[in-house]
Amino acid sequence: MTDTITNTRGSVTDVHTVACIGAGTIGAGWAAYFLAKGYHVRVWDPAPDAAPKVRQLIDAAWPALTQLGLHPDASPTNFTVHADLAEAVVGVGFVQESAPEALELKQNLLADIDAVTAADVVIASSTSGYSMTDMATRAKNPNRLVVGHPFNPPYLIPLVEVVGGEATSASAVQWAADFYEYIGKSVIKMDREVPGFIANRLQEALWREALHMIDNEEATVEQIDRSITDGPGLRWPIHGPMTTFHLAGGQGGMRHMLEHFGPSLKSPWTRLDAPELTDDLREAVISGVADAEERSVNDLIVERDAAIVAVRNVIDGIKGRR
Amino acid sequence: MTDTITNTRGSVTDVHTVACIGAGTIGAGWAAYFLAKGYHVRVWDPAPDAAPKVRQLIDAAWPALTQLGLHPDASPTNFTVHADLAEAVVGVGFVQESAPEALELKQNLLADIDAVTAADVVIASSTSGYSMTDMATRAKNPNRLVVGHPFNPPYLIPLVEVVGGEATSASAVQWAADFYEYIGKSVIKMDREVPGFIANRLQEALWREALHMIDNEEATVEQIDRSITDGPGLRWPIHGPMTTFHLAGGQGGMRHMLEHFGPSLKSPWTRLDAPELTDDLREAVISGVADAEERSVNDLIVERDAAIVAVRNVIDGIKGRR
Repeated sequence: MTDTITNTRGSVTDVHTVACIGAGTIGAGWAAYFLAKGYHVRVWDPAPDAAPKVRQLIDAAWPALTQLGLHPDASPTNFTVHADLAEAVVGVGFVQESAPEALELKQNLLADIDAVTAADVVIASSTSGYSMTDMATRAKNPNRLVVGHPFNPPYLIPLVEVVGGEATSASAVQWAADFYEYIGKSVIKMDREVPGFIANRLQEALWREALHMIDNEEATVEQIDRSITDGPGLRWPIHGPMTTFHLAGGQGGMRHMLEHFGPSLKSPWTRLDAPELTDDLREAVISGVADAEERSVNDLIVERDAAIVAVRNVIDGIKGRR
Repeated sequence: MTDTITNTRGSVTDVHTVACIGAGTIGAGWAAYFLAKGYHVRVWDPAPDAAPKVRQLIDAAWPALTQLGLHPDASPTNFTVHADLAEAVVGVGFVQESAPEALELKQNLLADIDAVTAADVVIASSTSGYSMTDMATRAKNPNRLVVGHPFNPPYLIPLVEVVGGEATSASAVQWAADFYEYIGKSVIKMDREVPGFIANRLQEALWREALHMIDNEEATVEQIDRSITDGPGLRWPIHGPMTTFHLAGGQGGMRHMLEHFGPSLKSPWTRLDAPELTDDLREAVISGVADAEERSVNDLIVERDAAIVAVRNVIDGIKGRR
């Protein structure tokens, strides 16, 4: 892979204008986020009612963005809407594509964006499922095309998964990761393309198991939702599934947990087969929570409890207003 | 199934004393919760250091319980620890068994508890994996044995899954569900035994997919945790996975979502095969979010955004103290 544009690509701090290509829920949500971070946003969308729809979503998002803290230059009106693609990318330092999820549409659109955008600009796609290798096939300069996968709503959920395709340059992937970090996102930079990236694979496993349970009348939709909101869902904003299982091992942490509950991995608890708990996997998991282990289990428990109490109190307050 | 003890079983409001059988993390956690709700607690545990360990966990839990609100009669010292099982259940109105997760141990212990506990008292097991049908085999009165599965920590997570075994009376299951509701728990009463109940099946599907990803070096432990804490985990305390997908459908809700994303169910996004999206399953899912649909999608979005902002602010505050 060659990277012909590395030398001219500017610093992430030089960006002043961002293009949002496609203005549905995700695209307009990105626009709201970029505006809150003080950028000028140029929106492209072929729909005749794009402008009022974007306006409406930004207005709806603004109070939440204000609560989280606006950039000094932030303004909810600092955007323009364009029907012409070449016009939309004039002078932009970054492009976020959020068109509908259809492969051929993405292939053509990314090729079109690439053709009209200044050569030193990185172009990211919000795709939640396609690989950049598959999407970049028609673009002349696939080296600057990356996936920057957000979560709904993009103006509130920090996570962005960043990964390139086979023809993407490592420097473009790094630039995108740096830019998202710079604007306050929580970035997961992946070394290789995995269908569904990371979070969606995990969400999807849960969703598929839920559909199986509904299909077999083992649980209702309401029960599935409540089993998460009133159960594990209260722990997940503070500790992910791995640290949660680390704490399930008591003072012995993940090592004890795998020794104690490892055998039950073989139980038919889900329709997804468990992997063989090899020594390698065991050690990868144990050393992976090493960061957490540097803090004592008691310390993590105190943190978890404080988080659950605080989350329960804010959620109860919000539900009380229903 | 006959229920010989229904007529003498008291109201859930008549309980003043609860027995906690087994005083590990879960059992002592239950003790802390019952104390916070104003009950006298009798703890049984064969370990010589049971009393100081229970004391320690209750003291650690009490500040959080105080923040959530104590019963007027609540006292963190209103418990006794017993080495003799018969002594521990004297005068109790409910028994919560939380012994180590080993089938034969549970079978023998439940039989022993049943033998010494007054006939009108419901006995619940905290098991996270065994069915009551398998655990109740040695008890003389299996009709009053139910599963009351909590989530760690039981003093903070509201969810309790309640289900009987083949020999459990419907009235005992109902009594346990009523009692847990009465003391402020979020109860899911299941009609039939499903291995792993509901929440653990869902958690386990996610956990297995995570282990596969680590095994194949597709993601690190840290990335998996962060993909949840900074992503979907911020939505799950307010809206479960089904309502989350309802909102992923935009104004068209779950119906649009299934039409739009249904085909991608066939994609290899997880190692768990998807169920066939039959008309029946489709309708079950759509009508299942009917409660949510009675509130407009916009209303749900406003609620979701308020929750994410509030959760992010409390979590950021807690992380800032690290």
